[in-house]
Amino acid sequence: MKISGRNKLPATVKEIIKGSVMAKVVMDYQGVELVAAITVDSVEDLKLVVGDNVTALIKATEMMVIK
Amino acid sequence: MKISGRNKLPATVKEIIKGSVMAKVVMDYQGVELVAAITVDSVEDLKLVVGDNVTALIKATEMMVIK
Amino acid sequence: MKISGRNKLPATVKEIIKGSVMAKVVMDYQGVELVAAITVDSVEDLKLVVGDNVTALIKATEMMVIK
Amino acid sequence: MKISGRNKLPATVKEIIKGSVMAKVVMDYQGVELVAAITVDSVEDLKLVVGDNVTALIKATEMMVIK
Amino acid sequence: MKISGRNKLPATVKEIIKGSVMAKVVMDYQGVELVAAITVDSVEDLKLVVGDNVTALIKATEMMVIK
Amino acid sequence: MKISGRNKLPATVKEIIKGSVMAKVVMDYQGVELVAAITVDSVEDLKLVVGDNVTALIKATEMMVIK
Repeated sequence: MKISGRNKLPATVKEIIKGSVMAKVVMDYQGVELVAAITVDSVEDLKLVVGDNVTALIKATEMMVIK
Repeated sequence: MKISGRNKLPATVKEIIKGSVMAKVVMDYQGVELVAAITVDSVEDLKLVVGDNVTALIKATEMMVIK
Repeated sequence: MKISGRNKLPATVKEIIKGSVMAKVVMDYQGVELVAAITVDSVEDLKLVVGDNVTALIKATEMMVIK
Repeated sequence: MKISGRNKLPATVKEIIKGSVMAKVVMDYQGVELVAAITVDSVEDLKLVVGDNVTALIKATEMMVIK
Repeated sequence: MKISGRNKLPATVKEIIKGSVMAKVVMDYQGVELVAAITVDSVEDLKLVVGDNVTALIKATEMMVIK
Repeated sequence: MKISGRNKLPATVKEIIKGSVMAKVVMDYQGVELVAAITVDSVEDLKLVVGDNVTALIKATEMMVIK
């Protein structure tokens, strides 16, 4: 199975904060902090817990460049 | 100046392909390839060239998690 | 392997148009036409061809509602 | 009135969960579940209730493909 | 008909550049330039031409803040 | 420092509502209301308060057109 989304960063889950609808998932990627805002449903469906090895996925059209 | 977008990855530009409207900017971050699809106008406005040190920016709501 | 993106629609590829950077992938899901704009790199990486059975993936934060 | 967003799926609202800022709107589209994360303001502005016939709208650049 | 997307800016089309898949639509809103990257299909479906009075639509989750 | 995101609207913060994870930031741009859904972390990191002069940032691929 392959996904068209071009950016796949291996990361480790460091913190999960659940609201009513959205959850914040903080990850570590080689010392850089990543933050994903996904639904609480997704956190539960994936059974995400601190320490999980995951992949952060970002579509190329969603990435900007700062110079 | 601060930007609300939570994810900021220091990267180096490896390749730029320009189409009529969109451009592909391939970057390297510590051995992981990043790909951003931005407008050709942005590439020109930032004077992006191969070798540039840049920051890839991603809003938290645009990041997914795969487990 | 599970993806946090909540919306997964089984579909069949009907047409692929490649530009320099972006490609248009037209799909059919039970008579409704779906259109995804992804990178040409993704089309090639997935070896997408007309007739492929695929899944269209959409993050919940990217879906709007019209009433 | 026409909208540039290419993907328009007729759906029925099945469930609405409101948080402080974001709301989850679960819809049914021909037996497939759709989930949109929109603002609570939008839910109120559209007077969305369970049973409503709506259209789920997705921009082509926001749709990925899994094969 | 109402759309959940929260940001609606009345604007005038100033320039349209079509690529193979994507098009750039430059708009003017009270002296500020807006740029939308939409599919060529959308430009044709809406019969967009320079001078058109349109509305730029942005979902709240797609807007960032710089301070 | 330049950002590839094409749309930059000068605005004034009118209201901030914080949830557990996401926050709503209402802004005024020349009499038009803008609404951004960003993380609570971003609101705190930027020390956003009512009355702040800010810039609303939108990537061109996130802007739709209604005609």
